[in-house]
Amino acid sequence: MAHLMRMAELSAQSGVPVASIKLYLREGVLPPGERTSPNQALYGEIHVRRLRLIRALREVGDVPLAAIKTIVGALDAQTGSTHEILGMVQQAITAPIDDSARDEVVETMVDEIIAEQGWFTRQNPARDMVVAALSRVIELGGDPAQYRELLSAYARAAEIAARADIAGIARELESDTIVEEAVTWTVLGDTVLSGLRRIAQESGSAKLFRHEECE
Amino acid sequence: MAHLMRMAELSAQSGVPVASIKLYLREGVLPPGERTSPNQALYGEIHVRRLRLIRALREVGDVPLAAIKTIVGALDAQTGSTHEILGMVQQAITAPIDDSARDEVVETMVDEIIAEQGWFTRQNPARDMVVAALSRVIELGGDPAQYRELLSAYARAAEIAARADIAGIARELESDTIVEEAVTWTVLGDTVLSGLRRIAQESGSAKLFRHEECE
Repeated sequence: MAHLMRMAELSAQSGVPVASIKLYLREGVLPPGERTSPNQALYGEIHVRRLRLIRALREVGDVPLAAIKTIVGALDAQTGSTHEILGMVQQAITAPIDDSARDEVVETMVDEIIAEQGWFTRQNPARDMVVAALSRVIELGGDPAQYRELLSAYARAAEIAARADIAGIARELESDTIVEEAVTWTVLGDTVLSGLRRIAQESGSAKLFRHEECE
Repeated sequence: MAHLMRMAELSAQSGVPVASIKLYLREGVLPPGERTSPNQALYGEIHVRRLRLIRALREVGDVPLAAIKTIVGALDAQTGSTHEILGMVQQAITAPIDDSARDEVVETMVDEIIAEQGWFTRQNPARDMVVAALSRVIELGGDPAQYRELLSAYARAAEIAARADIAGIARELESDTIVEEAVTWTVLGDTVLSGLRRIAQESGSAKLFRHEECE
């Protein structure tokens, strides 16, 4: 029989404070425990796993509780292919974009890049996310043409990362935590990639620009 | 003579509401205008540019005001090389990481990857960001070895993006908005890369996993 535990142990094992566990139970992102008396319930491994998932998404991925609700709902429904679940996660974590931030030249450029990579996209909100971010930079006075090459390099980088993502998921499809891992990695992979980009920038920038210090 | 304007026009030109402009003036992230009477001041192009920068960082990059203060402070100081300014931006936007999230195996793996790429890093908080994110994923039940290849692919992707960043900055060093552009791109480049990764994932995932739907 699986090990059952009280709230205090659940908190210790998952590293999530009791007050947060109670919030997650109320919000329905954590399934209820097995009630043993009106004031007590027992929890199992499934609760520990779910809390670790929530903690990873919240603490490192900075995902709002509302998005976690959607993600967890899709996990619990246990319908839909891995492709559909991951698509839903993407929708949940991609914040809606303020329309004013669209620059038409940028929009065309982004669509060209998508076509260049042979990607196809069905109303992926990530496209608008890219358009908005780049439009903002260009609004500062940048020349869109200067960003064409940059964007193209980013698309190549994204393709490498995404291929590795998909290969990683495909390799572990039999693992019983694969969907949770895939969901978390969809979110935290952004953090990993951003972090590595910063480390790479530090090295590249030091080589190129640090001599300015001596002038 | 440069065009000077009142608060209302500054708001219209920058797309930032008057209440926010007043907050930024109080917080010192926007330099004061030229006072023409006790209740009125005039603003110029420098204010429009600064507001666009703040808006880009806040709205798309989701950078907290405290970090924007640090970034703007470094811009205004006008000392330090481009390398130093970008390094400071990185520090400001990289949130401090909860130490409990470190897994030793992951830490070693990340350092190996950094060495593999020939990167060097001087206490870059981005390293801890990567370690924490990956540690959280592995905590869910993943096998660290399975992530070795993924991490290596991500490092290659990050190198491509960072090289393009540095080349882009080097190409435009003479532009008078280069530091603002570089600062914004350091932040929003993450958003662009995440967005493109999601689009690439959608394509890759559809190819590989969508057949599950028909089973």
